[in-house]
Order: sequence, then structure tokens, then C-alpha cells
Amino acid sequence: MCGIFGIQGHDEAANIAYLGLHSLQHRGQESAGLVARADDAKTTSGLRRHVAMGLVSDAFGREQLDRLPGAAAIGHVRYSTAGSSELRNAQPFLFDYAGGSVAIAHNGNLVNASTLKARLEASGAIFQTTSDTEVIVHLMAHAREPDVVGRLRAALAQVEGAYSLTMLTDDGKLIGARDPHGFRPLVIGRVKDAYVLSSETSSFDLIEADFFREVEPGEIVVIEKGGLQSYRIAVPAVEPRFCVFEHVYFARPDSLLNQRSVYRAREKMGMKLAEESPVEADVVIPVPDSGVPAAVGFSRQSGIGFEMGLIRSHYVGRTFIEPQESIRHFGVRLKLSPVRSVVDGKRVVVVDDSLVRGTTSRKIVKMLRNAGAREVHLRISAPPTTHPCYYGIDTPTRSELVAASHSVEEIARYITCDSLSYLSHDGLMAAVGAPSAGDGYCSACFTGKYPVPLGRPDEAVLVQLRRPS
Amino acid sequence: MCGIFGIQGHDEAANIAYLGLHSLQHRGQESAGLVARADDAKTTSGLRRHVAMGLVSDAFGREQLDRLPGAAAIGHVRYSTAGSSELRNAQPFLFDYAGGSVAIAHNGNLVNASTLKARLEASGAIFQTTSDTEVIVHLMAHAREPDVVGRLRAALAQVEGAYSLTMLTDDGKLIGARDPHGFRPLVIGRVKDAYVLSSETSSFDLIEADFFREVEPGEIVVIEKGGLQSYRIAVPAVEPRFCVFEHVYFARPDSLLNQRSVYRAREKMGMKLAEESPVEADVVIPVPDSGVPAAVGFSRQSGIGFEMGLIRSHYVGRTFIEPQESIRHFGVRLKLSPVRSVVDGKRVVVVDDSLVRGTTSRKIVKMLRNAGAREVHLRISAPPTTHPCYYGIDTPTRSELVAASHSVEEIARYITCDSLSYLSHDGLMAAVGAPSAGDGYCSACFTGKYPVPLGRPDEAVLVQLRRPS
Amino acid sequence: MCGIFGIQGHDEAANIAYLGLHSLQHRGQESAGLVARADDAKTTSGLRRHVAMGLVSDAFGREQLDRLPGAAAIGHVRYSTAGSSELRNAQPFLFDYAGGSVAIAHNGNLVNASTLKARLEASGAIFQTTSDTEVIVHLMAHAREPDVVGRLRAALAQVEGAYSLTMLTDDGKLIGARDPHGFRPLVIGRVKDAYVLSSETSSFDLIEADFFREVEPGEIVVIEKGGLQSYRIAVPAVEPRFCVFEHVYFARPDSLLNQRSVYRAREKMGMKLAEESPVEADVVIPVPDSGVPAAVGFSRQSGIGFEMGLIRSHYVGRTFIEPQESIRHFGVRLKLSPVRSVVDGKRVVVVDDSLVRGTTSRKIVKMLRNAGAREVHLRISAPPTTHPCYYGIDTPTRSELVAASHSVEEIARYITCDSLSYLSHDGLMAAVGAPSAGDGYCSACFTGKYPVPLGRPDEAVLVQLRRPS
Amino acid sequence: MCGIFGIQGHDEAANIAYLGLHSLQHRGQESAGLVARADDAKTTSGLRRHVAMGLVSDAFGREQLDRLPGAAAIGHVRYSTAGSSELRNAQPFLFDYAGGSVAIAHNGNLVNASTLKARLEASGAIFQTTSDTEVIVHLMAHAREPDVVGRLRAALAQVEGAYSLTMLTDDGKLIGARDPHGFRPLVIGRVKDAYVLSSETSSFDLIEADFFREVEPGEIVVIEKGGLQSYRIAVPAVEPRFCVFEHVYFARPDSLLNQRSVYRAREKMGMKLAEESPVEADVVIPVPDSGVPAAVGFSRQSGIGFEMGLIRSHYVGRTFIEPQESIRHFGVRLKLSPVRSVVDGKRVVVVDDSLVRGTTSRKIVKMLRNAGAREVHLRISAPPTTHPCYYGIDTPTRSELVAASHSVEEIARYITCDSLSYLSHDGLMAAVGAPSAGDGYCSACFTGKYPVPLGRPDEAVLVQLRRPS
Repeated sequence: MCGIFGIQGHDEAANIAYLGLHSLQHRGQESAGLVARADDAKTTSGLRRHVAMGLVSDAFGREQLDRLPGAAAIGHVRYSTAGSSELRNAQPFLFDYAGGSVAIAHNGNLVNASTLKARLEASGAIFQTTSDTEVIVHLMAHAREPDVVGRLRAALAQVEGAYSLTMLTDDGKLIGARDPHGFRPLVIGRVKDAYVLSSETSSFDLIEADFFREVEPGEIVVIEKGGLQSYRIAVPAVEPRFCVFEHVYFARPDSLLNQRSVYRAREKMGMKLAEESPVEADVVIPVPDSGVPAAVGFSRQSGIGFEMGLIRSHYVGRTFIEPQESIRHFGVRLKLSPVRSVVDGKRVVVVDDSLVRGTTSRKIVKMLRNAGAREVHLRISAPPTTHPCYYGIDTPTRSELVAASHSVEEIARYITCDSLSYLSHDGLMAAVGAPSAGDGYCSACFTGKYPVPLGRPDEAVLVQLRRPS
Repeated sequence: MCGIFGIQGHDEAANIAYLGLHSLQHRGQESAGLVARADDAKTTSGLRRHVAMGLVSDAFGREQLDRLPGAAAIGHVRYSTAGSSELRNAQPFLFDYAGGSVAIAHNGNLVNASTLKARLEASGAIFQTTSDTEVIVHLMAHAREPDVVGRLRAALAQVEGAYSLTMLTDDGKLIGARDPHGFRPLVIGRVKDAYVLSSETSSFDLIEADFFREVEPGEIVVIEKGGLQSYRIAVPAVEPRFCVFEHVYFARPDSLLNQRSVYRAREKMGMKLAEESPVEADVVIPVPDSGVPAAVGFSRQSGIGFEMGLIRSHYVGRTFIEPQESIRHFGVRLKLSPVRSVVDGKRVVVVDDSLVRGTTSRKIVKMLRNAGAREVHLRISAPPTTHPCYYGIDTPTRSELVAASHSVEEIARYITCDSLSYLSHDGLMAAVGAPSAGDGYCSACFTGKYPVPLGRPDEAVLVQLRRPS
Repeated sequence: MCGIFGIQGHDEAANIAYLGLHSLQHRGQESAGLVARADDAKTTSGLRRHVAMGLVSDAFGREQLDRLPGAAAIGHVRYSTAGSSELRNAQPFLFDYAGGSVAIAHNGNLVNASTLKARLEASGAIFQTTSDTEVIVHLMAHAREPDVVGRLRAALAQVEGAYSLTMLTDDGKLIGARDPHGFRPLVIGRVKDAYVLSSETSSFDLIEADFFREVEPGEIVVIEKGGLQSYRIAVPAVEPRFCVFEHVYFARPDSLLNQRSVYRAREKMGMKLAEESPVEADVVIPVPDSGVPAAVGFSRQSGIGFEMGLIRSHYVGRTFIEPQESIRHFGVRLKLSPVRSVVDGKRVVVVDDSLVRGTTSRKIVKMLRNAGAREVHLRISAPPTTHPCYYGIDTPTRSELVAASHSVEEIARYITCDSLSYLSHDGLMAAVGAPSAGDGYCSACFTGKYPVPLGRPDEAVLVQLRRPS
Repeated sequence: MCGIFGIQGHDEAANIAYLGLHSLQHRGQESAGLVARADDAKTTSGLRRHVAMGLVSDAFGREQLDRLPGAAAIGHVRYSTAGSSELRNAQPFLFDYAGGSVAIAHNGNLVNASTLKARLEASGAIFQTTSDTEVIVHLMAHAREPDVVGRLRAALAQVEGAYSLTMLTDDGKLIGARDPHGFRPLVIGRVKDAYVLSSETSSFDLIEADFFREVEPGEIVVIEKGGLQSYRIAVPAVEPRFCVFEHVYFARPDSLLNQRSVYRAREKMGMKLAEESPVEADVVIPVPDSGVPAAVGFSRQSGIGFEMGLIRSHYVGRTFIEPQESIRHFGVRLKLSPVRSVVDGKRVVVVDDSLVRGTTSRKIVKMLRNAGAREVHLRISAPPTTHPCYYGIDTPTRSELVAASHSVEEIARYITCDSLSYLSHDGLMAAVGAPSAGDGYCSACFTGKYPVPLGRPDEAVLVQLRRPS
């Protein structure tokens, strides 16, 4: 996962983009970067770039922002994925090609990147990063169209998979684009005379922007001084497939995505879950922070009281030193602590939004029992995760997904909980307001029904190719 | 405020103390420090020290911890107070005196520090820090008693005010002490063969220690290989006066302080508040994170649904760059965001644990109205803060305390909320389980009834002397 | 200017390359980087890279080196040039292309880079750096030859200008190459079973390597386990043109370049200078450190005593804070101090190796007069610098070269010295052992006779294109 | 060794002191610190302090200097000595006592510090550093005199050993003091209306100050707005004993100390050495940088040509990573490289200023032979170092001083040189202009004749007590 941002027409473009990235920080903590366009453009292209590893607040100080003047900027935060944690993969990328200079920031994952890369290399292309975003850039450079929008349309007609993009050209155009399925979010806002692009609406409150509309699936928007123009990506229309996992876990609860409140969707998941899998219990507690809305919903529907029975510490640094002589369940303990007075002697319902490998849930159950819980019932506000995502979420390979190879009963036994239930797929679809057939959403991680076919049959290869941005 | 820790009899003393400080991080983020006693004691005293500005995880890495071997250690986290943010004030202090070498970590504030300092200087003492902790050290050095415990008793017989202390001697004694009123917490735990001292029990879950008992008000405990010995501070017995603000705000909700769950106390404050100041409304929302338990209590008692209508960002760094052209209410926005779908069109009860200057509350009210709240009713789960604390909490001076000079109605008007109510003092005392008269607690910040008289009548001077540790 | 290094066949390749870069640090302090090839090659290509801004010792620690295992490595140190001080220009570059993965480090400057770049962009290439090195990489990727050596030969047949290169392939080949004129140095050494490539022989003493031979102008050497193979770049043979400025100033005095000791060459420049421009004086002093050998030579030839009349401070950091109220000639003072007892009341000959803008020399003269010098005679151990270098030395543009537009008399007046003399071009050629006609050397910066014609007539454009590495 | 600085009456006092410390950086690289007095004195004492580990340029940036406004400041650079490399020992110290607030910076070493410390502790003093400077502060605090000068005089009447001090009081007095023997230097300069105190005159050139006079042995100078006043330390007058090792090695060559040019003194040492120990040879080379003036003198006297046959690298960082598989003589190689063209086939005289353990000299000899030297004759421009210094130079213990237990012949054999000679004591005294008896200088490190008797007979204890500042 990644977060992307863009702004055009604001005196403090880089400053605002910096704030925008801050509000998207939950989408990626590995690296952060900005490209801004200096209006006077003393440098050839006028596009200036700063990227660094770490959080937005670590990567940028006053000095870095002061070196990024101008009225237009784009930004990117990147999620840490194993093996490619390098500065050269930090976005936005900035490149020169026959059409001038362009910067690009990408959220998503292309499924035919390796095929395209091989084809491009055969015709003389060199690749300097391990990101599939570079493929898009090469396709633009090879396109015959005279202008950047034409080149981008030509490039996007060839790629398959998930992408939301923001781009900045050396003549001051801010461009946003979203794949035909619309897997990843991209919204448009307005602040004063400026247009803003952002992965989520949560950015808008911070910078005092108003929500304008979403970039449509398959749409390219080009923002210049004159206003906003819309283009279509030249591919046959497909049904929208917004990633349901954004609603389940990834997006911020204060965001409005796919015309739907993330908070409310999560709360409804909790309510549906309580309907589907009721349990006799004394208290409902969330796994904070992401499990809170669903636990509130579960409590409301079930009538069982809500309590914050687990406390999350927010001071855990990246370089925490573990004791040499291991303390049991150390990593989880560092982040979560049980509130003994809430759970002691109680039958506890724990609501979490996902269960991937099962190891953390197992530790939480043990922690709650140590704190005196009489019974621990785990309720997951989503269906079992049985398939990896090829569209930009960094899920583990199938072999690591406990639900891919184990029944709910087996998982419950491993977790050592008294009962375990998942939300049904229908329940999830109802919670996000989807029509009965689940139309409009991609839920392949729960069903294996991938909207975009993978280029090669060998999943192992595909997983390796996967380089979510 | 500060947090203190100590451990004796553990192979990885400094590592465990490091974890202990991590779990006390909420009590102070300005500086962190450890002193450990090397068992082989190649250095004269065997006591080694590392202190640094910043969070525990910033101040200590593998390298720093490896330089602190040995079976006993003490640690300290310090709160940032204006004007004295210097490394030389970072604790634990380490000093040589006629009795050898001793390290000391202090939480609290002495009210006769300036008088004692003047007297000590007159007899030739030099002061190298601006911390009142140094006064205790000088008193120990000037004492005639032959051993460290005797010296400490003699020193503590002269100081007045609030203190919880951990100390480490060059012959391996871990010492804990608590002033006769017991203003600040200090608890004893056991892990394997080791004894642990900590400001709060929240440390014990992380390091897998069991709660043993509190250090009693007026007690000195000395922990050696042979076990734990108890001494009394040689002053007339007084009634315990545990700081009620620890329950209201300061301590972690998963801690057990003064034999009482902090979480449950806060929840009861919310319930009492709902009883005392009911309101017709659609939703109850907390100001996270500290307002959550009281909001849960308010919701339960009132029957109005609980929602997380404000989201707290946990990525805000210390050096966040503000936009030059100011965004309204920027600081608060950066940390808190309203969930529009929760508050839009609703009559909202906001529960917070304190209202000091009123500026933040005012911003929250505006933020909620901008997000569509129809009515905003502010409920504070404590009485109005009318008096500064002289016992270790870094409250502002009286002139900055809005409740010191304004009526509730005036404050409500300033805050621009539709209604404002505080919990009554009786309600607070009931919530923390105090007898009707409020016995057993210090609530001077709400009442002005200071259990320990101040040395001088001039508050301005006293405020200046105040150097909470 | 830059420094390059390579090693093949050594257990600690990255460690040795790190030391090698250290000994080339004088050739570039802006950034440092290494690429090593892991023998087990768990990553696709096996080539791992670390680059960072700053000195070698800042850029690399134990941790960074430990992540670069393997028996082959190349490295690069980069000189700071205005406007392109960015991490993305730090070398070695690492890229994937149809032939696999290759890393490249470059010292020199291509004169037809912009023409080639335009041509490559027209055929779809994208450029991610502002370095002309990237042009070579693209040409390799576009070549039809099946193997890396063939591709490199094809690429180098198209570029014009100055280059010394080290490259590392994903199958473990270490490649060195040098342009047909041999502007920049590149030498081969042996340590145990390993081959080493380095910009200068000064590296060899540190790592205990033995000098083997130079890479010949127009030669490509390919080093594998089997040994060293030699190829020719497929261009017509030209006369060698080794950069004389390496001998004058740039190289380390303990290096042997173009079969000639740098120290001895400088000493002879000083002797020739004394012959050509004698002066009645009491003492000869160098501008340290680079002026020392020529001053020793001047002293020997003239019989005037040598003294270290100027002291150089070696503690000046990059971020030195200047006093706000300016101290005269501050920057120079910080680095150089006069020894009053050496110059007071004396007629002083100051020997320096170059005079570019004249500002520093002017400050030195004033400094010496303030310290009591009765007369100050400036002797420059090279001819006047009248033309910019297009082959990799970061000289200023012509308009900044004082000797391009002023007579020696005018310069002397500006410098305020009592006399000023430069070494003649013939004297310089004699000092470096060149045949009478100056054959074998490029001295275009002194003569304007550029061995490789520039692609376009407009110097302003060319200067802008110049991106010395 | 340490360097100290002070300034009174300058608008940019801290900035100038920062520059002054820079010019004293050779006297200590472990830590650097400044205390300045804010004129408006909003803080109680007005004295503000910043100290940090590392070089002056690392310890101070714009931000740190901006926090130190005011017209008076003192500073300190500290030498790294084993075991006490801690920030709490970084000077200047700042302390409150009955007389107000005072800051102090100290160069030297007290020989009765441990006796005084024991006495002070017995009367209740606590020690927070391991520096003997703290003893002086305690003695001042215990003095009965009403003013700071009286207190300082009383304190200095009790201490024995070597000290040069700068102090700053909270009412703006800058104080300088020097022990009765005047072991360590301290000079007075003037810049505009300000007075400056510095360890060496080398500071004055940088800040454009004029030399005024030395602080006399046994003198206290007090500088206020009204001017400079002089006091005597209340002890019987003794003969001055300026440390001859300052001239041999420690001071900067551009300094004037004890009315004598350091450069000229070193040059004369070299000349005397050539007279006393001539040798048939082809070339004289120094061990740079400190051996250069003596080598110039040796060359002049002997008629053998001077060359820079060893190159010193100035890029060696503090954290240089050594290769795991050791390279012979690595540490020396990193700093020094032989110039083969200078020494190959030659009979070489190497001039160095001291030979302490012999290990470095041995490596240099081997390095020169590897570079082709036919003979290597080592000449040391000082007598054999046979005794440790107790007055502030960080020499090793006697057991580590090779000359303490070995004859010159034995040392020569160990060093593997063809001949070894030291300068005679008489020769040294002649070079520094001392009367025949060596009056006026301390040369105990060469003779064992300590001017100030040590408090206890046991050298081992004394060495341990030694904490040079």
C-alpha cells in the first residue's frame, strides 16, 4: 500500500502536500517524498524532488520544504515491503524523456509488469528501480503521441492491474489517473483556488479542503490554471471493483471512500457480525485502534457493553531493543496491554478486523486469559483471508495465510479461543452497501475471484513479481 | 511529572529497566536515563550511567544498553517543562559523596527546596542542576549517619512536598521511598528472583512481573540479595493524600493505583457525570485517547450511544512544520480529526478529562460543528481546575487556568459549546472510592486545599521554584 | 572530478573497496557509494548497492558494509558540483537491462552527452539522473551485441570525451575502461589473488596491493576468475592526452600517474618556476597542502630557505558558522593561518599550484602582510588557467577565470602582491616529462587546444551540459 | 590537555568564542562547550550553557549559538582520556553557590585533588563529575570571602598542580587565572573594545584580536566593563615552570607562547638535533604535520635536502571500519602514506617530535623500507620521554613509556631503524631559549624532576587520580 497526493494552484503547494502526506501516513511509513514545480523554473525542468526513508515528519524539515517552492506539488508515502526497502524505490519518481520532465507517484500494483518489463528491455530500456511504476514511465516514453496526456493514455492502455496515480509535468500540469476497475481510491478536493488529489478524503479536513468528487475508474484528470479536464483511458469499460479491504482495514475511519463512510462501514460490519455470530458474554472489547468501530457496532447490536479492554502504546519506536532472554509474546505486549479490571472474571468478546497468520491473535487471547478473562470469543469483522492480493495490498503468500489451509475450527484451536467467528462475505457486502452479487467491489482476498487475470499461471512467480507501491 | 523504575536481582537489569521506562513513557517524554551497577565493578563505584534527551527508544540502542551490564538498575523518564529542558537535568543523577556513590531518580516536587537550597549554599554546597532532586542528595551528603539508609532518612526528614524515589548504591542496594502523604505512586513487583519498583503497575504486564504491594506513604524499602527491608521516614505520621489527578488523567488506564483500577475510576467518573449533568443527545464521543473510559461510562449511564467521533493521529513528530499561511486550529487538527459520518446532523456529547486553558476545547467544538454537529455538549470528567499543583504536576500558573477566574457559563461561552458541565468534587471522590470527606486524596488543584503548606506566601515565587521532576 | 575503484577475487571485496575509496577521497567528497556482488546471489541479480551523501567514513559504517558481502565490488566518490548535489546522482549506478544487471562508476565527462541524450529520448529512453553516465548505460542497453563486453564496446564507440569506468556484472565480471585519449587515470593492481582497479596508485599502499599496469587509453579490461582479458574500444587510434592538471593539482602526491611520480612532477614545476621567474627574497613558503612539493622545488633551485609559513587547519567542518558581523577574509582565515615568526619583516615567496578566480590569493597576500611580510611574491607552479575544462574537472566558466580576461600585471595588481609569475607552458611540459611539443598531455585549460572537439559551438550551452562526475 | 577561551565586551561573544575554540581544536577533540551571559538575564543567573561530545563544528550549529546571546562567554575543548569520556565531564561547568552562579573552564591537572575531594566529602560535599575542576568549585563555595574573586583566591591557595582557568560570573565578570608555576599557557588579547582570554595566541589571528600580554603565573585577572584588574594568588612566589612539551608538540606552530614562537622553537630543536646527531643521508623527511618545522631545521643545519616523503590523510573519520582480515600496520597506513619517488633507493632521515611507545615509529620505518628506503635514520626533536606528566598532558603510565626502561640502542633495535637519536636536554633548553640550568621550564617528562611534589608516593594511585582536562 501507498498513499499519493497532489495539489495545483496553491502558494504553498509543497507545504500543503507535506500535510496531505501526513494525513496519509497510515498508508505507508517506509519512505516519503515530494516533487514541487518552481514557478520561476531556473532549473531546466523546474521540478525539484526530495525523498527520504522514514515518516513524513522525519523525511522533511523546514529546510527541505523551503527548497521546494512553487504552486504545484505531488507526494508519496510508501509501505515497507520485504526486500525492496531502498531509497531508490522511494517515490515520486522524476524523469526526463522526449516530452520533457515528469514526476509520478503510484499506489497499486500492475499484474503484467514483468511481461512489459521484458518487452521494454528487449527494445533497449534500462530499469533503475525494482518498482513496477517505472514500467508506466517507460511506456509513456515509448509512446508516439505528442503530448503528455496522450502518452499517458497510451501507456495505461497497456498496463493491467491496480493503479491510482498523481503526476506533475514541467509545464505545471497536475494529472490524476485511476485504473478502469478503480481498485485503489483517488479523490479530488478544492481549497481556495487550488485543486487537490489525495488517496483519501481524510486529508481534506487537515488542509481545510472541500470534497469535490472521486476520480472515476478509468478516468484521467488534468488540472491546469484553466481548470480541470477529464479523459478516458482507452480500454473497454469494465465494472468497478473497489478494494473492499480499504473499508475493512486500510483506510482511515474518517475517510469517505466509494461514496461511503469508512467508520460507518466498519460499524455495520460489527453489527452484522453480532447478528450472524452472537455469543453470551459480559463485555465487548476491540483490538485498538482499527477494531474500534466494529466493536462499537457489535456492542450496539448485541447489547453487550463496550469497553477499551486493551490499551495500545503509541511510543513504540522502530528500533526497539528486545530483551535477550525472551519475554513471552514480547512484540505484542509492547504494543498492547490488557486492562485487568475490564476483563478479569469476564466472558470477553474480542473484535478484530482481520486474522492473517493467527500469531498475534493467539498472543492476544493468552494475554487476556493471563489478565483473568474467563472466556475469550474472537470475532473477525471480515471473512477469512484465503487468497493473496495482487492489486497492491502487501498480504503474505498463500502458504502463510492460515485461513487458506485451515478450517475455522482448526484456527480457533490454534488461537486457543473459546469461539471464533468471521463475518460472512454476504455480511461484508451488505455492510459496504454492495448489491447482493457483490458488484462494485473486489474481494478476491476473501474469494479468490480476481477481477484482472494474472499474466502467468505460476503464483509463486507472481508473488515474487509483486512489488506493491 | 516523571516516571521512575528500579530492579534488583535480574541478569538483564538494564534491559528490563529499559522496558519498564517504555511502559512509563506517558509520564515523561523529554529525557530518559538509566544507571546500572556492573557486578564486576571495574570502575570505582561500579555505577554506570546513560541519559539522553527524547523518548526511551531514541535515547537507548543496543550499544547503550550493552554498556550497562549488571543485576541492578534504576531509570527515569522526565516530563518537558518550560525553561529547564536541558540534559544536565536528565535523571537519574549519579554522585559521589562521603558514603560512596549513589544514583537517584525522583518523581515529585519539594515545596521547601529553595529554603533548603539557600541553607545548603550558605554552608558551602554547589548546585549543578536546576532540579530539586539535587537538594535531597546534598542533605544525604551532609547527614551524620554512617550508612546510606540512615542518611536518606535524615535527608527526607527535612524535605517537604511530594516525592517518590528510586536509588541505587555502589554496593548494590536498590532503595525506594515515598513521601508521608504518598502523593506520587510507587509500586513493588516481583519477576523471578528480582524485585521491581515502578511508578505504575502498567510496567508489570510488559516485563511479566507480578504485583507485590505498594511502597507505603512514608516508607523506605531497601532491596538487597537478602530480600526486602522496610524503614519509616522519621516524621510524624500524616494522612495519605494520593494525587487524584493520577486517576483523572495522568496514569495509564491499565494501571492499578492506590488499590484501584484507573480505567474503572475513569469510567465511574463518566457515569457520575452523566448522572449529575444529563443531556438530550444522539451520540457520546470521547476526546481520545484519555477521554475514552469516561465516555464509555457516560454512554452506559445515559443510554446514549458511544462512537469514536474523533480520530487521533499517532504519527505527529516533534518537529512538525506548520504551513506559513496559517490553517485555522492547525495544531489540534494535526492530532484530532472528526468523523463526519458520526457527528453530521447529530447532537453530540463530547467527554474530555480536563479543561485547562480552554483553547483546545474551543477548537474541538469548532471542528465538530464544521463536521456537521447540530449541538455540541462538553462534559468534563473532573471538577474545574482552579489551582496550580505544587506537588509535581506541570499545571500552568493560576492566571492561565481559565476556571480560576471564570464561571462555567463564561467558559462555555468562550468554548462556544451548547452546554458545559464538570463533574462535581463529590462525584469525583465517589468515583475514586474516597470516603465522603475526600480523605486519602489530594485534590488541591480542584479545591485549593493544599495538604503541605507552601514555604512562602508569594505564589509567583513558588511557581518559579517549581521544577517538577 | 570523481574517484573510482573496483576489485575482483577478494573475500572482503566491499571492505577493501571502502578503503580504496578512502584513499581516493580527495577526488570527491560529495557522495560515496559501493556495489558488491553477493556470491550466493539470493537476490535476482546478486548486486547490492549503498550510496550516501558525504565522506566515505560518514556514508559507510559496519552495518552498511556487512550488507555488501561477496568477492567483487566497485565504488565511487563524487565531487560536489553546483546544482546537481543530489543523492540520485550518487554512483555507482545499478540498472537492469536486457543483458541482466550491471553497476557502473564513472570518472570524466562526455562532450556529446546532450546530443546522445536527445537521440535516445527520441527513441523512448527515460533519464532518471542528470549524470552523463546514464547515457553510456542507455547505449549499452540499445546495443545489439549479445554480451556485456560487446555492448560496452558498442556504447563507447559512440561517446566522445573523457571517461574512466569501472563496472560490475551480475555474473561477477569486473570491467575497467578508459577513453582513447586516456584523459583520466585508471590503474590496475594486484593483492593476493585479486585484481584491483583504481583512479590512482595511492590506493595500493593502503590495501597492500602491488601496481600491475595502467589501463591503456582506449582499452577495456575484463576481470574474471580466469584472469584478465583485454579489448580495444572500436574507434580509430588517437594520441594519448593525459590530463596535466592531475599532475598540477588533482592527484595525490604519492600517486604514480602516466608513469610519473606526481610529487616529483610538482617539485620540478617548482624548480622550473624558480629558473624562469627568480626573485630576491628571504623565505619560500607553500600554500599547504598541495603547494608543498613545488615550494620545496622552488627553494632548492633558488637557494632561498623553505619554511611552513602558512598553517592549514584540518578541523573545518562542512557546517561552520560564520560570525554575523563579518570578519575580514573569514573563510580563508579559518583554513589558513600565517606563522608570524616566519614571515615578519621578510621578503616572502609564496608558491601555489593554481590561481583561478584570484580571491583566495588576494586574501593570502593580505594575511601575510598583516603578519609582517615586507614583500610578497606569488609564484604559481602552472600556466594561467584561461579555458574551462570539458573533460571532467570542475573549473568555473570562462567569465570567472581571471586569467581569461586579465593580464598577469592586472592580476598582480588585484592580488596586491609585489610580483606574480606563472610557470610557462614549456616549463610545465618539461616538468611532466613531455616531449617538446607537449605530446601525450591535454593542457587545454592553459591553451584552449581541446583534443576532442565540442559538439556545439556555443560554450554557454556546453558549460551547462557539463556534469563532471 | 584542553583548550580554554573567554571574551568580555563583544556583541557576538558566543560566536567569537566558538571561533576561538575552533582555533584551539588541536588541544581537545572529545567535547566542546560554551557558557554565555545573556545581558537581559531573563533567567535567574543569565548564564546559559551548551556542551556536546565531538568537535566544535559538530557540537555547535546556528541554533545552539543563537540560544547563547550576550556580551560575555567562555568556552572549553576537552581531550579524550580513557575511561572518563562522558558528557557530564564536558566543560565549562555551570553551578550555583552562595555567591550566585559561576561557569568555569579548566586546562591542567591538580595533584592534590584526591586529598581535597576526601576532605570536602567529609564535610558534606557531593561530586557529580570525575573532573578535578569540580574540586576548585567546591573550595570556592566553602570559602568565607564575600566576593567571587576572594573566593577564587581562597580556593586556589589550597590547590596544587597545574591550572589555567577562565570563569564567567552572573554579574558579567570574565576571570582568568594561572597557577604559580604557569605550567599551562593563558594569553590575553584585545579585539575592538573586548578583552579575550585564550590558551594560545593562534586564536587571535582568526578573530582579528591583538596580543595584549600573558596572564602571569600566579595571577588572577578580572575583566569587567571598567577594564582589567589584576590580583595575585595568595601563595609564596615560585619560579615559573612553563611546560616545555607545549613547545615540543602540543601547541600550534603559529602560536607565541612564553614570549617565544612555537615554530621557531621547533625549527631550532631540529637544528640542534642535526648538530648533535649528524648522519650521512640523502633526504630529510618529517612525520607530518607536527614534525615539519624540526625537519626544516634539521635540513637547514645539515644541508641535506628536505622533502615531504610522508603524506598525511585528513579525511580519517572517528568511526573508520577496519578490514576484518587485518592489513599490516593498518592504523598508521590510514593516516600516513610514503611517497615512493622521494624515498626509493635513498638514505632517509625521518624527523619526529616524540617517541612514546615506539609502535608508530616502528610502523613508519617499515613503511619507508617497503617504499624502497635504503637506510632509515630516526631523529627525535626532544629527549627520551621517561616520566609521566602529572600536570595535564595525557602521557601513558611509566610502564608504557618505552624510554623509561630501555636504552636508545634497545629502542632503535625495536624500531628497526638504522640509527636513532634524541635531542639532548641541553639542546632542547637552548632551542626554547632557557638559561643554561633549564630555569623557567618544566621538563619533568624528560627528567623526572617534578616542580610540584605529588601528594602521595604511589605513582599507580596518582596516575589513576590524574584526570587531565
